[in-house]
Amino acid sequence: MGDKQLDEWLQSIASEGAALPVTERRGFLKQALTLFGSAAVGSSLGTSAFADAQNLPPNVPVWTRSLGSGVVSNPYGKPSDFESHVKRRTVDWLTADRIASVSFTPLGDLKGIITPSAVVFERYHAGLPQINPHEHRLMIHGMVERPIILSMEDLMRFPSTSMIRFLECPANGGMEWRGAQMDRLQFSHGMLACCEWTGVMLSTLLEEVGIKKDARWILAEGADGAHMSRSIPMAKALDDAIIVYAQNGEALRPEQGYPVRLINPGWEGNTSIKWLRRLKVGDKPWHHREETSKYTDLMADGSAREFTFVQECNSVVTCPCPEKPEKNKGKLWIEGLAWSGRGKIKHVDISVNGGVSWRPASFTSQVLPKALTRFGLEWDWDGSPALIQSRAVDETAYVQPTYGQLRAVRGTNSIYHKNAIHTWKLYPDGKVSNVQIS
Amino acid sequence: MGDKQLDEWLQSIASEGAALPVTERRGFLKQALTLFGSAAVGSSLGTSAFADAQNLPPNVPVWTRSLGSGVVSNPYGKPSDFESHVKRRTVDWLTADRIASVSFTPLGDLKGIITPSAVVFERYHAGLPQINPHEHRLMIHGMVERPIILSMEDLMRFPSTSMIRFLECPANGGMEWRGAQMDRLQFSHGMLACCEWTGVMLSTLLEEVGIKKDARWILAEGADGAHMSRSIPMAKALDDAIIVYAQNGEALRPEQGYPVRLINPGWEGNTSIKWLRRLKVGDKPWHHREETSKYTDLMADGSAREFTFVQECNSVVTCPCPEKPEKNKGKLWIEGLAWSGRGKIKHVDISVNGGVSWRPASFTSQVLPKALTRFGLEWDWDGSPALIQSRAVDETAYVQPTYGQLRAVRGTNSIYHKNAIHTWKLYPDGKVSNVQIS
Repeated sequence: MGDKQLDEWLQSIASEGAALPVTERRGFLKQALTLFGSAAVGSSLGTSAFADAQNLPPNVPVWTRSLGSGVVSNPYGKPSDFESHVKRRTVDWLTADRIASVSFTPLGDLKGIITPSAVVFERYHAGLPQINPHEHRLMIHGMVERPIILSMEDLMRFPSTSMIRFLECPANGGMEWRGAQMDRLQFSHGMLACCEWTGVMLSTLLEEVGIKKDARWILAEGADGAHMSRSIPMAKALDDAIIVYAQNGEALRPEQGYPVRLINPGWEGNTSIKWLRRLKVGDKPWHHREETSKYTDLMADGSAREFTFVQECNSVVTCPCPEKPEKNKGKLWIEGLAWSGRGKIKHVDISVNGGVSWRPASFTSQVLPKALTRFGLEWDWDGSPALIQSRAVDETAYVQPTYGQLRAVRGTNSIYHKNAIHTWKLYPDGKVSNVQIS
Repeated sequence: MGDKQLDEWLQSIASEGAALPVTERRGFLKQALTLFGSAAVGSSLGTSAFADAQNLPPNVPVWTRSLGSGVVSNPYGKPSDFESHVKRRTVDWLTADRIASVSFTPLGDLKGIITPSAVVFERYHAGLPQINPHEHRLMIHGMVERPIILSMEDLMRFPSTSMIRFLECPANGGMEWRGAQMDRLQFSHGMLACCEWTGVMLSTLLEEVGIKKDARWILAEGADGAHMSRSIPMAKALDDAIIVYAQNGEALRPEQGYPVRLINPGWEGNTSIKWLRRLKVGDKPWHHREETSKYTDLMADGSAREFTFVQECNSVVTCPCPEKPEKNKGKLWIEGLAWSGRGKIKHVDISVNGGVSWRPASFTSQVLPKALTRFGLEWDWDGSPALIQSRAVDETAYVQPTYGQLRAVRGTNSIYHKNAIHTWKLYPDGKVSNVQIS
C-alpha cells in the first residue's frame, strides 16, 4: 500500500468511519459494528495505526498485508476450505446399500440456476462405472436404414448444441407425499439439478441413420452394470432429446454418464440414460425392468400409471430453509427455485402465512424453458412464527397443487411425481422446519 | 442382464450387427468398425458369446459386467481421470514470477457457454489471498448519506440477482497484436471465461447508502495484498454492476474473489475487483496505480488512452484449433465463441479461405447480452489446406476488425483490447497452427 493510499485510508477512517451513523433501516450497521468490534480483537486484524483509529473499518487482516499464493497452484480449482460443508449427502436409511442408491444436491447453499457439476445429485442402479472414452461406443440400430457405431470422436463431428435444462428424479420428495417430513431442503428436494448440456440432437443422429416408416419408440440402454434402459417415444426423440457429452462447459462428469448420455429435457431423470451405449429403434415400447418394476405410479384403485414422463410444475423456497435459519428480524430476502417439464415458468407467488394470502415474487435469473428459474421476494419479518410457501405456474397455466389436491387425484400409494406446495415453518428464534399443510 | 435381454442382444448382433452396411456418407462407420475391430482384441472387451458374433458391437467391457462404486464416494465430485489434461496453464516466460501472473482457460476442451469455475483463468497482482468470510467486511463510504459496513451475512439479506456474463482480461491475446503467434488457443484467447454470477446489484447498495448530489465515480478496492483498485463511473455502477458472492451456482472460488467481488459486465476484467473490501463514492476518478501504470493504451503518437473499459466485439474458432487437430476429412463441425461488451452477438460468419469468402454460422447456445455465445457451421473438408476464421457482429452493428484495420487505428504499441479476426491454418495432415492475416 503506497503512502498516499495509506493516508487516504486513515483520513477516511478518521473523518467518516468514526462518525458512522447507526441506522435501523435494515439493522445491518449496528450488527456489523458489533461483529467488527468483536472481530477486531482477533490476532489477524488491525495494525497499530488502525488500532489507534478505534479499530474501525476497514480492517487489515493478514491477507491484506501479505502476498498470496501464485497462479495455477491448483490447475484444476476447488472451492474455499470455508465451503467444505457444501456437498452431496446420502440418507443412509433410504436404500439398502450405496451401490443402488442416491445422493442429494445441497440446494440450500446454491445460488442462481446452474448447479455445479460437483454437487449434482447421484442415482445409480448398479453403482458408478469408470468408463474409458476411447473404448466406449454408441450403437444405433433396429428399425433404421443405416445402423451405425460411433466412437466419441465420431460423435463430436456432428453439429453440436447447448441448452440449460433441469434434471430431476421423479422420486424427488416422494416420501413427503406419504407424510414423511425430511427436515432438510437437501433431502426434501435435492434430487434436482440444472446444467448446461452440450451434445448432438438425437434427431440429427436419427436423420443420419434413417428411421423406417413404422418406427415409433427408441430403447436407450446404458453401459453400466444394470444396463439401465428406458423406452422413449419417437416424438420426444425428434423434438428436444439430446445426446450429451458435456456438462457446464466441460466433459460430462462420471456420475452424470461420462462419456455420453441421453437427456430428455423436462422428463423424469431416469429416462435420460447415462453411460449410453445403445439406441434401438422399434415400433412399440419394450416394458423393460425399470419401466415396470419401477417408474410407474400405483393409484388408489390398484392400477398403475405407466409412462408418466413429464415432471410437472414445481417450486420450493431455498432460503430460509432448515439449513439456512434466519438470524435476525427485519428485511430479508426469501428466494427459491421453480421449474416445469412443460416449458417456462410464468409466475411464482409466495405466502408467509401458509397460503392464506400470496404476494408475487420476482424472477432473478434467466427464465428458460425446462430449466430451474430463480425467484425472490423481499420481506420485513417481525419475528412472529411464519409458514412460508411458494406456488409456481408454468406457461401452460398449470398451477402447482396443494398436498390435498394431489392426494385427491392420485391417492397416497405413489412415490413418483410429487410436486405439491411445500411449507417451511419459521420460528421466532429463526429456526426453520418442514411442516405439511394440505 | 436378463436372458430375454441377452437374447435380444445376440439377435440384434446376428441379424443387424453382422450385416452393418459400410456407408461413406460421413466416413464414420468404416472408421468405427476398424476402431472396434482393433479394440476388440483388448482384454476388457467381449465375452465368448460376443467373440462368436465376430466381435461386432455392442462390446461388453468390464464396466458393463460389474458393479460400479457407490454414491458419494466423492461428496464433492471431480472430472474423469481421462480428462486430467483439461486444466489451467501458465506461459512461464510471460511474467517475471507466478505471484503477479496469469493462467489461461483451456478453451479448446470446453463446450457450450458456461466456463467451469475450476478452469476459469487467473490474474493476480499480489497472489491469491485465502480469506476467512466470517472476518471479511465490505465498507461503502465517501460521498454517501449513510456509510455502511457489511458482513457477508448482511449482504445476503439484500435482493439477489443472477446473470450469465463473460469475463475477459483486456490483455487477452495482446501479444498477438504485436506479431507473436502463440500456438495454442489456450494461450491466444484463454484469458476469457463466462459464468453465472449471483449477488446484489450495486445500484441496490447505493440506494441503501444514499449517494450525494455530486457523486460521479466509485473506487473499488480489493482485500488482496495489492489492494488492487479501479475507478468506476457512477453510470456503470447504477446500470448493471453487481456485487457478486456466487459463481456457477456455488460460492465464488478463491481465484475469483471469494467471498465477494465486483463484476462490471462487458468491461475489462481488471475493473471487476476481486476480494472486494471497499467502495468509496467520489466526484472524480482516483487515477490509482493500476489505472495509470497499467490498463491504459499507448497509441502510435505516444499519447495514452485512459479508461478504455468496454471489451469490444470479438470471436474465435475453438474447434479446430492447435489443441484439436482434425483427424479425418469429410463432414466436420467448426465451432467457436463470440462475445461483445456492448450487448448481444447479432451475427457470426466463418471463412475457410482466409476471408476471401464467408458463410453464416448458426448460434448453438443461449444468446445473452455480454455473454459468450457459441456458434457452429458444418463443413465438408476435402483435405486441402485451409485458413479458418470467424468474424462477429454485435447488436450495435460493430464488426470485428482485421489486424490491418486494428493496427491502422491504434498502432502496435498497445497490449490491451486486441479483438482482431483470428486465423487458424489447417494442414492436410489435420494439424492446426496460428497464422496472422492482415
